[in-house]
Amino acid sequence: MAATAQVKAPNVDVTIAELKKLFGDRVSTAHAVREQHGKDISFHEAHLPDAVVFVESAEEAQRVVQICARHKTPIIAFGTGTSLEGHISAPNGGISLDLSRMNKVLQVNEADLDVVVQPGVTRKQLNEYIRATGLFFPIDPGADASIGGMTSTRASGTNAVRYGTMRENVLALQVITPDGRLMRLGRRSRKSSAGYDLVKLFVGSEGTLGIITEITLRLYGIPESMVSATCAFDSLEGAVNTVIQTIQSGIPVARIELMDTETVDTVNKYSKLSLPLKSTLMLEFHGTEASTKEQAEMVQALAEENGGGHFAWTSQAEERTKMWQARHDAAWAAKAAKPGWGMWATDVCVPISRLAECILETQKDIVASGLYAPIVGHVGDGNFHLTMMVNPDDPTYLKRAEGLNDRMIARALSLGGTCTGEHGVGLGKIKFLYDEHGEAMSLMRSIKKALDPDNIMNPGKIMGPIN
Amino acid sequence: MAATAQVKAPNVDVTIAELKKLFGDRVSTAHAVREQHGKDISFHEAHLPDAVVFVESAEEAQRVVQICARHKTPIIAFGTGTSLEGHISAPNGGISLDLSRMNKVLQVNEADLDVVVQPGVTRKQLNEYIRATGLFFPIDPGADASIGGMTSTRASGTNAVRYGTMRENVLALQVITPDGRLMRLGRRSRKSSAGYDLVKLFVGSEGTLGIITEITLRLYGIPESMVSATCAFDSLEGAVNTVIQTIQSGIPVARIELMDTETVDTVNKYSKLSLPLKSTLMLEFHGTEASTKEQAEMVQALAEENGGGHFAWTSQAEERTKMWQARHDAAWAAKAAKPGWGMWATDVCVPISRLAECILETQKDIVASGLYAPIVGHVGDGNFHLTMMVNPDDPTYLKRAEGLNDRMIARALSLGGTCTGEHGVGLGKIKFLYDEHGEAMSLMRSIKKALDPDNIMNPGKIMGPIN
Repeated sequence: MAATAQVKAPNVDVTIAELKKLFGDRVSTAHAVREQHGKDISFHEAHLPDAVVFVESAEEAQRVVQICARHKTPIIAFGTGTSLEGHISAPNGGISLDLSRMNKVLQVNEADLDVVVQPGVTRKQLNEYIRATGLFFPIDPGADASIGGMTSTRASGTNAVRYGTMRENVLALQVITPDGRLMRLGRRSRKSSAGYDLVKLFVGSEGTLGIITEITLRLYGIPESMVSATCAFDSLEGAVNTVIQTIQSGIPVARIELMDTETVDTVNKYSKLSLPLKSTLMLEFHGTEASTKEQAEMVQALAEENGGGHFAWTSQAEERTKMWQARHDAAWAAKAAKPGWGMWATDVCVPISRLAECILETQKDIVASGLYAPIVGHVGDGNFHLTMMVNPDDPTYLKRAEGLNDRMIARALSLGGTCTGEHGVGLGKIKFLYDEHGEAMSLMRSIKKALDPDNIMNPGKIMGPIN
Repeated sequence: MAATAQVKAPNVDVTIAELKKLFGDRVSTAHAVREQHGKDISFHEAHLPDAVVFVESAEEAQRVVQICARHKTPIIAFGTGTSLEGHISAPNGGISLDLSRMNKVLQVNEADLDVVVQPGVTRKQLNEYIRATGLFFPIDPGADASIGGMTSTRASGTNAVRYGTMRENVLALQVITPDGRLMRLGRRSRKSSAGYDLVKLFVGSEGTLGIITEITLRLYGIPESMVSATCAFDSLEGAVNTVIQTIQSGIPVARIELMDTETVDTVNKYSKLSLPLKSTLMLEFHGTEASTKEQAEMVQALAEENGGGHFAWTSQAEERTKMWQARHDAAWAAKAAKPGWGMWATDVCVPISRLAECILETQKDIVASGLYAPIVGHVGDGNFHLTMMVNPDDPTYLKRAEGLNDRMIARALSLGGTCTGEHGVGLGKIKFLYDEHGEAMSLMRSIKKALDPDNIMNPGKIMGPIN
């Protein structure tokens, strides 16, 4: 675990020499820089790129792609390095294209509730930038990820149950194709039936079809009223059933998040909260004063029927932020509970009617495996996560984690679900993709080969070798 | 206009002979049947297929595709024939694959708010079928179209402002690829980041990538309270500005539809209503009793500021249905106003901030052109329609309509919009696609060639000749 591998791409020395001519010391072959770019925050083995180039504009990125295309050198886009399935590693070597300096908000169209950003803008930076407009961008993966990375992995988060994922919120893109052309996909209008949906094809394609250099996103008005609550339950089942009934009743809850007892314990310690040590829902309601009150009353009634205790309310911005930051830090809390251990974060998503079954079976399996693996989840979408902590000094841990992950995914697939709700495929989930998609994998391969015949864009990711 | 053209596909006699062996009298070469399958409800020239085959299962459809693939015979999927841009015509001849007998609802997953249907199920049939469950499917193009056709054209309708279009509401598909394989795309879980979004690629691909044989759709709970209203305005501008402000305020209106004075006049006559002869909004609010009341009050306040009169309310199901049926029949009303004339229905969609400008300029242009072309619109999305009526006895009409359409589309594109909000491309909008997408058209062509190298799936549609 956390080993470092390195494969040198053919001809890469020529590529690097040409890049250096253009970009000077913005091309780095330093080991530390390459290491930082070859390893995300997950347990996956690091694979170092041969060099890293820091670009500052779409035109510069285009020059990099053109040079790499000429020499068939792999290119791996890099934002903040916070992905979880080995997306940014370079198993075939090549150039890591660091887009983090392309971090400008280009256009805020307040009247249209949309914004145009460069890929290196992070979600928190964006919300900070637009705060005065009264608008916000709701998608919030755990990390303060870049919008480019979030687009590429089809990211999601706690607000998806109300506002959708990156799939629903990217209106248009500017991209560089593998042959080095810069082009626009999609328009700012809210809908269109003008041909193939190339925007949605690029969302979630993990850098395997091209480089994203501009993203147009939907924004939303900050609701008049936003109130959050926590509610502790006698059983995990009661908490999950409350979620299921809330969704089935069509209550437009903005956030409905689950933490099992283990997670509550670590979050209490890491974020200095004092939640009761029980399976807990964290909820948020958005709307007018009257409508949030009404929604909250409906969910409270459901919770009561399912063994939920009283709702601990918070409507002040500062407290709400603290509470949700604690939720976002759940994985770090788990990591802090096991210093020096590796973190393997994994997730699945199932149809809501099968959620209780999937979580309860998985919980039993965690106990049987003897692993420390707190459960958290964006349960309103049927999506939940395990943060499996792996002791590097005991080789059985990795094996046991692998078994637990394999079984959870088989369970989710058998219930009509997916092997990855929001983390993407990267290297980590390739082996499950055929079980999920079957024959359809051949269409993905055909599209990849058609758009990137030399396989230079993040080769090996999503579908493994394509020939 | 409404001429009938016919091109015989090479080798089609062999294809037809093989089909007849399998399907007997479910293969028709009768002129009347071919004519019905070669012409949609728009003004476009008819192009007759060489034969029509009526299939009753996915496996039968697969056999048809396999036979056509072997002989490189074009295949055009057919549902209800209610599309508007020449989607179902056969400019290269070939086989019309009639899927209307595949009209079963296969699975209603009440607890997951989803349903699995065959492509020939129509939207009204579906809603009738699921009525007892308390769920409904919101997407409602004017016609009682088939779900297969609606998926293929990325259809939309009056509820899209609240519930999204087919893009947001198709969860999974079963399709037959051009080489005759039957496969599944997507899963029932609400989100996934497991590779390329093939479902969204097929939604809106107009039968050019394969045949859709099963569709999994999202459903929604019928709201506790649904109230509709009409409101007449002193000016078209006032009505449009009310819409813009409603959307910008984030009021979750379920429907907000515009009719200009011309439309109100024809709708009054056709559907026996007595709306005041003014620019009019038709609205609907969904939610709890309290929240619909609150939403309605907010919109009323905005309308008042913009010269809107009083809201005429209706909450009884029967009256609401009558009112919305009248809205859906607006194109038929225009047709009835000019007996014997051809109907050319066209639409565009722009960012909401540019909607007033786009509609008002277009209205001026209608007056200047001397055409009868009532305006209706799903204005909450920035989407509006012209129903241009064309006198077949006066050749100048078609030319003038063409000019009006060309200018409206150029206007919409220059404002950041799209050349087709919800009608698709078919044959009618091909010529605008390069202006809209530029270089990105080459990606569409690459994908088409990769998945359908012999170009047998609805050839000539969306992108014209691909070589």
